[in-house]
Amino acid sequence: MHNKSCIMRLSRYRNALINLKLLNFNRVFSDNLADAAGVTSTQVRKDFSIFGLAGNRRGGYLVDDLIAELDKILGKDKVQKFIVAGIGNIGRALLNYAGFEKNGIKILAGFDVDPAKHAASTGIPILAMDKVKDFIAQNHVKFAIICVPSLAAPQVADILLSAGIKGILNFAPIRLKEHEGCMIENINLVTELENIIYFVNTMEKTEKA
Amino acid sequence: MHNKSCIMRLSRYRNALINLKLLNFNRVFSDNLADAAGVTSTQVRKDFSIFGLAGNRRGGYLVDDLIAELDKILGKDKVQKFIVAGIGNIGRALLNYAGFEKNGIKILAGFDVDPAKHAASTGIPILAMDKVKDFIAQNHVKFAIICVPSLAAPQVADILLSAGIKGILNFAPIRLKEHEGCMIENINLVTELENIIYFVNTMEKTEKA
Repeated sequence: MHNKSCIMRLSRYRNALINLKLLNFNRVFSDNLADAAGVTSTQVRKDFSIFGLAGNRRGGYLVDDLIAELDKILGKDKVQKFIVAGIGNIGRALLNYAGFEKNGIKILAGFDVDPAKHAASTGIPILAMDKVKDFIAQNHVKFAIICVPSLAAPQVADILLSAGIKGILNFAPIRLKEHEGCMIENINLVTELENIIYFVNTMEKTEKA
Repeated sequence: MHNKSCIMRLSRYRNALINLKLLNFNRVFSDNLADAAGVTSTQVRKDFSIFGLAGNRRGGYLVDDLIAELDKILGKDKVQKFIVAGIGNIGRALLNYAGFEKNGIKILAGFDVDPAKHAASTGIPILAMDKVKDFIAQNHVKFAIICVPSLAAPQVADILLSAGIKGILNFAPIRLKEHEGCMIENINLVTELENIIYFVNTMEKTEKA
């Protein structure tokens, strides 16, 4: 199995290709993709050779062909079904995020403990949290995004995993433990900002010194 | 200067400590923090010794003291001012995200090209994008979050940087180039999900084979 950074790069190459396609590009060179993805062109060619993606030296790669190949590798040749647990600010934004649907990611439903949110749902349904297990089983959902508060997150994760969820993206500001046979990624928004704050403040102190 | 993963770990330790404090813990051991942050206890002690954070072997660390020390290192002993550029679904969620304010991160304003969004603003003001340069200068803002569409993001980043922004968290699904003297982090939500999808699908193929 390939490592996370390799898959992240493939995903970045694909995003760059989608943007190039919007700008009516038909062909692309490893140097273009390297610039767009922030890596060296040697890295691009290495990644492509690992997955058997071939171009030719003079004409580069065909944008449409590369997108199709990357779609297959990244599982984007079919729709991937998700649910969102916890419909606060972030959960609601994700339910309505246009970037998912056009990337083959379909959010089937949101789940929340607050009945007021079920009544107010338009478009993608927002259901009671105690229906989540049956919903996952009936709809064969493998993926979930967790946006519940910190202290609720471990329990919600356990429920989702026991219902058959295999992959979780967690936005709750608590690190979820790894579970065997399941992939859990944590994004902590505050941590991301703290990291930026630390580096900028340290840069400024160094400049002044 | 310390590297990103070290700062991310300090930030995670701090989150774990905040959660422990909520649960009325007064003392913590490196093993507790290691579990919460998903690292080894040796790593915790190593990180703490780099920053001169001392505990004692028998009593562990005092939760309040550790939080105060980490706050100083992470620049959380004073309020850090941010703006959000682009008030779509994600931008709006970030304007209203309660986790920021209680972590010393203050979003002063949002900026959008759509006049309808300025009129509808409640709470944190949403202003015209052409006011962003003056606003940054007048309020001495150093940090920004970009949530504009992909193709607008590089231009918006250039405007922000020329106005004096030093640190950017970018949610636009395009990788922003590095600029000297500035810290730019990219979070691509689709890429994060693609990564999870790839690993889960590969795991399942391996199990079936």
